[in-house]
Amino acid sequence: MSKVVTIQQAVMAEDEKYALRVRKLMKEKGIPMFNIIGSPGCGKTTLLEAMADRADFSFAVIEGDLETSRDAERLASRGVTALQINTRGWCHLEAHVVEKALASLDVDGLDVLFIENVGNLVCPAEFDLGEDLKIAVSSTPEGADKPLKYPMLFVQAGAVLLTKIDLLPHVRFDREMFVNDVRSLNPRAPILELDLTSGAGVGAWVSFVSEKIKEKRSHAG
Amino acid sequence: MSKVVTIQQAVMAEDEKYALRVRKLMKEKGIPMFNIIGSPGCGKTTLLEAMADRADFSFAVIEGDLETSRDAERLASRGVTALQINTRGWCHLEAHVVEKALASLDVDGLDVLFIENVGNLVCPAEFDLGEDLKIAVSSTPEGADKPLKYPMLFVQAGAVLLTKIDLLPHVRFDREMFVNDVRSLNPRAPILELDLTSGAGVGAWVSFVSEKIKEKRSHAG
Repeated sequence: MSKVVTIQQAVMAEDEKYALRVRKLMKEKGIPMFNIIGSPGCGKTTLLEAMADRADFSFAVIEGDLETSRDAERLASRGVTALQINTRGWCHLEAHVVEKALASLDVDGLDVLFIENVGNLVCPAEFDLGEDLKIAVSSTPEGADKPLKYPMLFVQAGAVLLTKIDLLPHVRFDREMFVNDVRSLNPRAPILELDLTSGAGVGAWVSFVSEKIKEKRSHAG
Repeated sequence: MSKVVTIQQAVMAEDEKYALRVRKLMKEKGIPMFNIIGSPGCGKTTLLEAMADRADFSFAVIEGDLETSRDAERLASRGVTALQINTRGWCHLEAHVVEKALASLDVDGLDVLFIENVGNLVCPAEFDLGEDLKIAVSSTPEGADKPLKYPMLFVQAGAVLLTKIDLLPHVRFDREMFVNDVRSLNPRAPILELDLTSGAGVGAWVSFVSEKIKEKRSHAG
Protein backbone atom coordinates (compact mmCIF):
# COMPACT_ATOMS: atom_id res chain seq x y z
CA MET A 1 0.00 0.00 0.00
CA SER A 2 3.02 2.26 -0.25
CA LYS A 3 1.61 4.36 -3.09
CA VAL A 4 -1.60 5.17 -1.26
CA VAL A 5 0.31 5.93 1.94
CA THR A 6 2.65 8.25 0.05
CA ILE A 7 -0.31 10.17 -1.38
CA GLN A 8 -1.87 10.44 2.07
CA GLN A 9 1.36 11.72 3.57
CA ALA A 10 1.55 14.43 0.90
CA VAL A 11 -2.03 15.50 1.66
CA MET A 12 -1.24 15.57 5.38
CA ALA A 13 1.93 17.60 4.90
CA GLU A 14 0.01 20.17 2.86
CA ASP A 15 -2.69 20.36 5.51
CA GLU A 16 -0.15 20.87 8.30
CA LYS A 17 0.32 24.53 7.30
CA TYR A 18 -3.38 25.15 7.96
CA ALA A 19 -3.06 23.39 11.33
CA LEU A 20 -0.18 25.69 12.28
CA ARG A 21 -2.24 28.76 11.33
CA VAL A 22 -5.22 27.52 13.38
CA ARG A 23 -2.94 26.83 16.35
CA LYS A 24 -1.40 30.31 16.11
CA LEU A 25 -4.82 31.98 15.95
CA MET A 26 -6.12 30.09 18.98
CA LYS A 27 -2.92 30.86 20.92
CA GLU A 28 -3.45 34.58 20.26
CA LYS A 29 -7.01 34.29 21.49
CA GLY A 30 -6.01 32.19 24.48
CA ILE A 31 -8.80 29.68 23.82
CA PRO A 32 -8.05 25.97 24.09
CA MET A 33 -9.36 23.68 21.36
CA PHE A 34 -10.24 20.03 21.99
CA ASN A 35 -10.53 17.54 19.13
CA ILE A 36 -12.95 14.83 20.27
CA ILE A 37 -12.49 11.51 18.52
CA GLY A 38 -14.30 8.19 18.92
CA SER A 39 -16.36 5.52 17.20
CA PRO A 40 -19.85 6.22 15.85
CA GLY A 41 -22.26 6.30 18.76
CA CYS A 42 -19.67 6.27 21.56
CA GLY A 43 -21.24 9.33 23.19
CA LYS A 44 -19.38 12.35 21.79
CA THR A 45 -22.46 14.52 21.27
CA THR A 46 -24.00 13.32 24.53
CA LEU A 47 -20.80 14.43 26.32
CA LEU A 48 -21.17 17.90 24.81
CA GLU A 49 -24.85 17.98 25.83
CA ALA A 50 -23.89 17.04 29.39
CA MET A 51 -21.41 19.93 29.47
CA ALA A 52 -24.06 22.36 28.25
CA ASP A 53 -26.07 21.48 31.34
CA ARG A 54 -23.26 21.49 33.90
CA ALA A 55 -20.21 23.50 32.89
CA ASP A 56 -19.58 27.02 34.14
CA PHE A 57 -17.46 27.85 31.08
CA SER A 58 -18.81 28.98 27.71
CA PHE A 59 -18.06 26.91 24.64
CA ALA A 60 -18.93 26.38 20.99
CA VAL A 61 -18.69 23.25 18.87
CA ILE A 62 -17.55 22.52 15.33
CA GLU A 63 -19.50 19.39 14.38
CA GLY A 64 -18.09 17.05 11.75
CA ASP A 65 -20.40 14.50 10.15
CA LEU A 66 -20.61 12.93 6.73
CA GLU A 67 -24.27 13.86 6.46
CA THR A 68 -27.13 15.39 8.48
CA SER A 69 -27.09 18.28 10.94
CA ARG A 70 -28.66 16.26 13.76
CA ASP A 71 -25.77 16.70 16.17
CA ALA A 72 -25.61 20.49 15.74
CA GLU A 73 -29.39 20.66 16.21
CA ARG A 74 -29.15 18.61 19.41
CA LEU A 75 -26.60 21.08 20.77
CA ALA A 76 -28.40 24.21 19.53
CA SER A 77 -31.53 23.07 21.38
CA ARG A 78 -29.46 23.36 24.58
CA GLY A 79 -28.23 26.82 23.72
CA VAL A 80 -24.78 25.79 22.45
CA THR A 81 -23.42 27.48 19.34
CA ALA A 82 -22.67 24.61 16.98
CA LEU A 83 -21.44 24.86 13.41
CA GLN A 84 -22.18 21.75 11.37
CA ILE A 85 -19.73 20.64 8.70
CA ASN A 86 -20.86 17.88 6.36
CA THR A 87 -17.87 16.11 4.87
CA ARG A 88 -20.02 14.33 2.22
CA GLY A 89 -18.19 11.04 2.30
CA TRP A 90 -14.87 12.19 3.68
CA CYS A 91 -14.02 10.26 6.84
CA HIS A 92 -12.34 12.92 9.00
CA LEU A 93 -11.99 16.67 9.39
CA GLU A 94 -8.93 18.51 8.07
CA ALA A 95 -7.35 21.73 9.28
CA HIS A 96 -8.25 23.81 6.24
CA VAL A 97 -11.92 23.07 6.96
CA VAL A 98 -11.46 24.10 10.59
CA GLU A 99 -9.78 27.33 9.49
CA LYS A 100 -12.80 28.13 7.30
CA ALA A 101 -15.18 27.28 10.14
CA LEU A 102 -13.31 29.63 12.48
CA ALA A 103 -13.80 32.48 10.02
CA SER A 104 -17.58 32.16 10.42
CA LEU A 105 -17.69 31.40 14.14
CA ASP A 106 -17.44 34.21 16.64
CA VAL A 107 -14.98 32.68 19.12
CA ASP A 108 -14.15 35.86 21.05
CA GLY A 109 -15.68 35.60 24.48
CA LEU A 110 -15.63 31.80 24.46
CA ASP A 111 -13.71 29.92 27.11
CA VAL A 112 -13.12 26.80 25.03
CA LEU A 113 -13.82 25.37 21.58
CA PHE A 114 -14.67 21.73 20.89
CA ILE A 115 -14.41 19.92 17.60
CA GLU A 116 -16.50 16.78 17.36
CA ASN A 117 -14.74 14.81 14.67
CA VAL A 118 -16.41 12.31 12.32
CA GLY A 119 -17.26 9.07 14.17
CA ASN A 120 -14.20 7.00 13.29
CA LEU A 121 -11.25 5.69 15.33
CA VAL A 122 -8.80 5.70 12.44
CA CYS A 123 -8.36 8.68 10.14
CA PRO A 124 -9.31 11.49 12.55
CA ALA A 125 -6.32 10.41 14.68
CA GLU A 126 -3.98 11.00 11.75
CA PHE A 127 -4.82 14.64 11.06
CA ASP A 128 -3.66 17.62 13.12
CA LEU A 129 -6.45 20.23 13.24
CA GLY A 130 -4.42 22.70 15.28
CA GLU A 131 -6.02 21.45 18.49
CA ASP A 132 -4.44 21.63 21.96
CA LEU A 133 -5.57 18.13 22.84
CA LYS A 134 -7.03 15.13 21.13
CA ILE A 135 -9.60 13.42 23.39
CA ALA A 136 -10.17 9.70 22.86
CA VAL A 137 -13.68 8.50 23.62
CA SER A 138 -14.33 4.76 23.92
CA SER A 139 -17.54 3.14 25.16
CA THR A 140 -17.85 -0.10 27.12
CA PRO A 141 -20.07 -1.94 24.57
CA GLU A 142 -17.27 -1.58 21.99
CA GLY A 143 -15.12 -3.93 24.06
CA ALA A 144 -11.81 -3.50 25.85
CA ASP A 145 -9.62 -4.41 22.87
CA LYS A 146 -9.90 -1.05 21.12
CA PRO A 147 -6.73 0.69 22.42
CA LEU A 148 -4.37 -1.90 20.92
CA LYS A 149 -6.43 -2.25 17.74
CA TYR A 150 -6.51 1.52 17.14
CA PRO A 151 -3.32 2.62 18.88
CA MET A 152 -2.65 5.89 17.07
CA LEU A 153 -5.53 7.69 18.75
CA PHE A 154 -4.70 6.40 22.23
CA VAL A 155 -0.98 7.20 21.90
CA GLN A 156 -1.78 10.84 21.14
CA ALA A 157 -4.73 11.35 23.48
CA GLY A 158 -4.52 14.10 26.10
CA ALA A 159 -7.31 12.30 27.97
CA VAL A 160 -9.15 9.02 27.48
CA LEU A 161 -12.86 8.96 28.27
CA LEU A 162 -14.47 5.61 28.93
CA THR A 163 -18.21 6.14 28.42
CA LYS A 164 -21.33 4.05 29.10
CA ILE A 165 -19.95 2.56 32.30
CA ASP A 166 -23.60 2.11 33.35
CA LEU A 167 -23.68 -0.74 30.80
CA LEU A 168 -20.83 -2.65 32.52
CA PRO A 169 -23.23 -5.18 34.12
CA HIS A 170 -24.71 -5.97 30.68
CA VAL A 171 -21.65 -6.21 28.38
CA ARG A 172 -18.40 -8.14 28.26
CA PHE A 173 -15.76 -5.56 29.08
CA ASP A 174 -12.42 -6.24 30.76
CA ARG A 175 -11.79 -2.96 32.56
CA GLU A 176 -8.33 -3.94 33.80
CA MET A 177 -7.20 -4.88 30.30
CA PHE A 178 -8.53 -1.59 28.93
CA VAL A 179 -6.65 0.47 31.51
CA ASN A 180 -3.45 -1.56 31.15
CA ASP A 181 -3.54 -1.33 27.35
CA VAL A 182 -4.14 2.44 27.44
CA ARG A 183 -1.27 2.79 29.94
CA SER A 184 1.07 0.75 27.72
CA LEU A 185 0.41 3.20 24.87
CA ASN A 186 0.10 6.38 26.90
CA PRO A 187 1.48 6.48 30.44
CA ARG A 188 0.24 9.97 31.31
CA ALA A 189 -3.23 10.70 29.93
CA PRO A 190 -5.95 10.67 32.58
CA ILE A 191 -8.56 7.95 32.07
CA LEU A 192 -11.98 9.26 33.07
CA GLU A 193 -14.99 6.98 33.45
CA LEU A 194 -18.37 8.44 32.56
CA ASP A 195 -22.01 7.51 32.72
CA LEU A 196 -23.67 10.20 30.64
CA THR A 197 -27.15 8.95 31.55
CA SER A 198 -26.78 9.68 35.27
CA GLY A 199 -24.04 12.30 34.81
CA ALA A 200 -21.50 10.34 36.89
CA GLY A 201 -17.99 11.47 36.01
CA VAL A 202 -19.07 14.62 34.19
CA GLY A 203 -17.81 16.75 37.08
CA ALA A 204 -14.27 15.34 36.78
CA TRP A 205 -14.29 15.97 33.02
CA VAL A 206 -15.53 19.55 33.51
CA SER A 207 -12.71 20.12 36.04
CA PHE A 208 -10.18 18.76 33.55
CA VAL A 209 -11.43 21.17 30.88
CA SER A 210 -11.44 24.09 33.34
CA GLU A 211 -7.81 23.38 34.21
CA LYS A 212 -6.86 23.48 30.50
CA ILE A 213 -8.72 26.78 30.08
CA LYS A 214 -6.63 28.32 32.89
CA GLU A 215 -3.37 26.94 31.47
CA LYS A 216 -4.12 28.26 28.00
CA ARG A 217 -5.05 31.73 29.27
CA SER A 218 -1.80 31.99 31.15
CA HIS A 219 0.09 31.32 27.89
CA ALA A 220 -2.09 33.45 25.57
CA GLY A 221 -0.82 35.89 22.98
CA MET B 1 -11.82 19.18 -0.37
CA SER B 2 -11.91 18.59 -4.10
CA LYS B 3 -8.20 17.86 -4.42
CA VAL B 4 -8.26 15.13 -1.81
CA VAL B 5 -11.43 13.65 -3.29
CA THR B 6 -9.85 13.60 -6.76
CA ILE B 7 -6.82 11.75 -5.41
CA GLN B 8 -9.04 9.25 -3.65
CA GLN B 9 -11.10 8.67 -6.78
CA ALA B 10 -7.91 7.92 -8.74
CA VAL B 11 -6.81 5.39 -6.10
CA MET B 12 -10.25 3.79 -6.18
CA ALA B 13 -10.29 3.57 -9.97
CA GLU B 14 -6.90 1.86 -9.95
CA ASP B 15 -8.08 -0.58 -7.30
CA GLU B 16 -11.21 -1.45 -9.24
CA LYS B 17 -9.24 -3.67 -11.65
CA TYR B 18 -8.18 -5.82 -8.69
CA ALA B 19 -11.80 -5.99 -7.52
CA LEU B 20 -12.86 -7.24 -10.95
CA ARG B 21 -10.17 -9.95 -10.88
CA VAL B 22 -11.22 -11.05 -7.40
CA ARG B 23 -14.88 -11.17 -8.49
CA LYS B 24 -13.99 -13.24 -11.58
CA LEU B 25 -11.96 -15.73 -9.51
CA MET B 26 -14.73 -16.20 -6.94
CA LYS B 27 -17.31 -16.62 -9.72
CA GLU B 28 -15.22 -19.41 -11.23
CA LYS B 29 -15.01 -21.09 -7.86
CA GLY B 30 -18.70 -20.56 -7.16
CA ILE B 31 -18.00 -19.25 -3.65
CA PRO B 32 -19.84 -16.19 -2.41
CA MET B 33 -17.85 -13.51 -0.61
CA PHE B 34 -19.36 -11.24 2.06
CA ASN B 35 -17.72 -7.97 3.06
CA ILE B 36 -18.74 -7.29 6.67
CA ILE B 37 -18.62 -3.62 7.63
CA GLY B 38 -19.46 -1.86 10.89
CA SER B 39 -18.19 0.36 13.69
CA PRO B 40 -15.44 -0.78 16.06
CA GLY B 41 -16.98 -3.18 18.57
CA CYS B 42 -20.35 -3.60 16.85
CA GLY B 43 -20.04 -7.39 16.96
CA LYS B 44 -18.47 -8.40 13.63
CA THR B 45 -16.05 -10.97 15.09
CA THR B 46 -18.69 -12.21 17.53
CA LEU B 47 -21.03 -12.81 14.59
CA LEU B 48 -18.35 -14.93 12.91
CA GLU B 49 -17.77 -16.83 16.16
CA ALA B 50 -21.52 -17.51 16.43
CA MET B 51 -21.49 -18.94 12.90
CA ALA B 52 -18.56 -21.20 13.74
CA ASP B 53 -20.74 -22.77 16.42
CA ARG B 54 -23.99 -23.03 14.46
CA ALA B 55 -23.58 -23.02 10.69
CA ASP B 56 -23.61 -26.20 8.62
CA PHE B 57 -21.52 -24.55 5.88
CA SER B 58 -17.73 -24.26 5.87
CA PHE B 59 -16.15 -20.83 5.75
CA ALA B 60 -12.91 -18.91 6.13
CA VAL B 61 -12.32 -15.30 7.12
CA ILE B 62 -10.00 -12.56 5.91
CA GLU B 63 -9.58 -10.34 8.97
CA GLY B 64 -8.73 -6.66 8.49
CA ASP B 65 -7.38 -4.70 11.44
CA LEU B 66 -4.97 -1.83 11.82
CA GLU B 67 -2.99 -3.75 14.43
CA THR B 68 -3.08 -6.99 16.46
CA SER B 69 -4.15 -10.49 15.40
CA ARG B 70 -6.66 -10.87 18.21
CA ASP B 71 -9.66 -11.36 15.95
CA ALA B 72 -7.98 -14.08 13.84
CA GLU B 73 -6.89 -15.82 17.05
CA ARG B 74 -10.44 -15.71 18.42
CA LEU B 75 -11.68 -17.41 15.25
CA ALA B 76 -8.80 -19.91 15.02
CA SER B 77 -9.59 -21.05 18.56
CA ARG B 78 -13.01 -22.12 17.21
CA GLY B 79 -11.50 -23.99 14.30
CA VAL B 80 -12.13 -21.30 11.65
CA THR B 81 -9.38 -20.59 9.11
CA ALA B 82 -8.70 -16.88 9.50
CA LEU B 83 -6.05 -14.86 7.72
CA GLN B 84 -5.16 -11.66 9.56
CA ILE B 85 -4.22 -8.58 7.57
CA ASN B 86 -2.78 -5.65 9.51
CA THR B 87 -3.29 -2.42 7.61
CA ARG B 88 -0.85 -0.49 9.85
CA GLY B 89 -2.80 2.74 9.94
CA TRP B 90 -4.85 2.33 6.78
CA CYS B 91 -8.56 2.60 7.56
CA HIS B 92 -10.06 0.04 5.18
CA LEU B 93 -9.18 -2.97 3.08
CA GLU B 94 -8.56 -2.66 -0.66
CA ALA B 95 -9.04 -5.23 -3.40
CA HIS B 96 -5.33 -5.68 -4.19
CA VAL B 97 -4.83 -6.78 -0.57
CA VAL B 98 -7.72 -9.24 -0.86
CA GLU B 99 -6.26 -10.65 -4.09
CA LYS B 100 -2.96 -11.29 -2.31
CA ALA B 101 -4.77 -12.87 0.66
CA LEU B 102 -6.64 -15.21 -1.72
CA ALA B 103 -3.32 -16.42 -3.12
CA SER B 104 -2.33 -17.72 0.30
CA LEU B 105 -5.75 -19.02 1.42
CA ASP B 106 -6.95 -22.39 0.21
CA VAL B 107 -10.55 -21.53 -0.67
CA ASP B 108 -11.36 -24.70 -2.63
CA GLY B 109 -13.80 -26.74 -0.62
CA LEU B 110 -15.17 -23.71 1.21
CA ASP B 111 -18.84 -22.84 0.97
CA VAL B 112 -18.42 -19.14 1.66
CA LEU B 113 -15.72 -16.57 2.38
CA PHE B 114 -16.12 -13.65 4.79
CA ILE B 115 -14.07 -10.51 4.92
CA GLU B 116 -14.20 -8.66 8.23
CA ASN B 117 -13.29 -5.13 7.25
CA VAL B 118 -11.56 -2.60 9.51
CA GLY B 119 -13.98 -1.27 12.16
CA ASN B 120 -15.16 1.91 10.44
CA LEU B 121 -18.48 3.00 8.92
CA VAL B 122 -16.96 5.33 6.33
CA CYS B 123 -14.09 4.27 4.08
CA PRO B 124 -14.77 0.52 3.92
CA ALA B 125 -18.11 1.38 2.27
CA GLU B 126 -16.29 3.22 -0.52
CA PHE B 127 -14.07 0.39 -1.73
CA ASP B 128 -15.19 -2.55 -3.83
CA LEU B 129 -13.30 -5.68 -2.75
CA GLY B 130 -14.90 -7.91 -5.36
CA GLU B 131 -17.48 -9.11 -2.84
CA ASP B 132 -20.97 -10.39 -3.67
CA LEU B 133 -22.55 -8.49 -0.83
CA LYS B 134 -21.63 -5.79 1.64
CA ILE B 135 -23.18 -6.50 5.05
CA ALA B 136 -23.85 -3.50 7.29
CA VAL B 137 -23.60 -4.22 11.02
CA SER B 138 -24.96 -1.64 13.48
CA SER B 139 -25.36 -2.16 17.23
CA THR B 140 -28.09 -0.69 19.44
CA PRO B 141 -25.73 1.24 21.81
CA GLU B 142 -24.47 3.25 18.81
CA GLY B 143 -27.90 4.85 18.49
CA ALA B 144 -30.53 4.82 15.78
CA ASP B 145 -29.15 7.81 13.87
CA LYS B 146 -26.34 5.92 12.12
CA PRO B 147 -28.03 5.06 8.79
CA LEU B 148 -28.61 8.70 7.81
CA LYS B 149 -25.23 9.81 9.19
CA TYR B 150 -23.33 7.10 7.28
CA PRO B 151 -25.64 6.55 4.32
CA MET B 152 -23.17 5.10 1.81
CA LEU B 153 -22.86 1.80 3.65
CA PHE B 154 -26.59 1.39 4.18
CA VAL B 155 -27.45 2.26 0.57
CA GLN B 156 -25.19 -0.53 -0.70
CA ALA B 157 -25.87 -3.16 1.96
CA GLY B 158 -27.18 -6.54 0.86
CA ALA B 159 -28.36 -7.06 4.44
CA VAL B 160 -28.44 -4.90 7.57
CA LEU B 161 -27.70 -6.60 10.89
CA LEU B 162 -28.85 -4.86 14.04
CA THR B 163 -26.80 -6.39 16.87
CA LYS B 164 -26.94 -6.20 20.68
CA ILE B 165 -30.73 -6.12 20.81
CA ASP B 166 -30.37 -7.60 24.30
CA LEU B 167 -29.21 -4.11 25.36
CA LEU B 168 -32.45 -2.43 24.19
CA PRO B 169 -33.81 -2.09 27.77
CA HIS B 170 -30.61 -0.28 28.80
CA VAL B 171 -29.90 2.14 25.92
CA ARG B 172 -31.72 4.92 24.11
CA PHE B 173 -32.52 3.41 20.72
CA ASP B 174 -35.45 4.34 18.50
CA ARG B 175 -36.04 1.08 16.64
CA GLU B 176 -38.77 2.48 14.42
CA MET B 177 -36.57 5.38 13.33
CA PHE B 178 -33.71 2.98 12.58
CA VAL B 179 -35.89 0.75 10.40
CA ASN B 180 -37.54 3.71 8.62
CA ASP B 181 -34.18 5.37 7.93
CA VAL B 182 -32.68 2.13 6.57
CA ARG B 183 -35.78 1.66 4.39
CA SER B 184 -35.51 5.21 3.04
CA LEU B 185 -31.96 4.46 1.88
CA ASN B 186 -32.42 0.83 0.92
CA PRO B 187 -35.91 -0.51 0.31
CA ARG B 188 -34.95 -4.14 -0.23
CA ALA B 189 -32.17 -5.30 2.13
CA PRO B 190 -33.40 -7.58 4.90
CA ILE B 191 -32.96 -6.12 8.37
CA LEU B 192 -32.03 -8.89 10.81
CA GLU B 193 -32.01 -8.36 14.56
CA LEU B 194 -29.42 -10.30 16.55
CA ASP B 195 -28.51 -10.96 20.15
CA LEU B 196 -25.14 -12.66 19.86
CA THR B 197 -25.02 -13.37 23.60
CA SER B 198 -28.07 -15.65 23.56
CA GLY B 199 -27.79 -16.51 19.87
CA ALA B 200 -31.22 -15.07 19.03
CA GLY B 201 -31.42 -14.26 15.34
CA VAL B 202 -28.31 -16.24 14.37
CA GLY B 203 -30.51 -18.90 12.74
CA ALA B 204 -32.10 -16.35 10.38
CA TRP B 205 -28.67 -14.99 9.43
CA VAL B 206 -27.31 -18.51 8.78
CA SER B 207 -30.34 -19.19 6.53
CA PHE B 208 -29.69 -15.97 4.63
CA VAL B 209 -26.05 -16.99 4.03
CA SER B 210 -27.09 -20.53 3.01
CA GLU B 211 -29.47 -19.09 0.43
CA LYS B 212 -26.67 -16.98 -1.06
CA ILE B 213 -24.40 -20.05 -1.20
CA LYS B 214 -27.03 -21.90 -3.27
CA GLU B 215 -27.56 -18.92 -5.59
CA LYS B 216 -23.84 -18.52 -6.20
CA ARG B 217 -23.30 -22.21 -6.93
CA SER B 218 -26.05 -22.17 -9.50
CA HIS B 219 -24.23 -19.34 -11.32
CA ALA B 220 -20.67 -20.66 -10.93
CA GLY B 221 -18.05 -20.83 -13.66
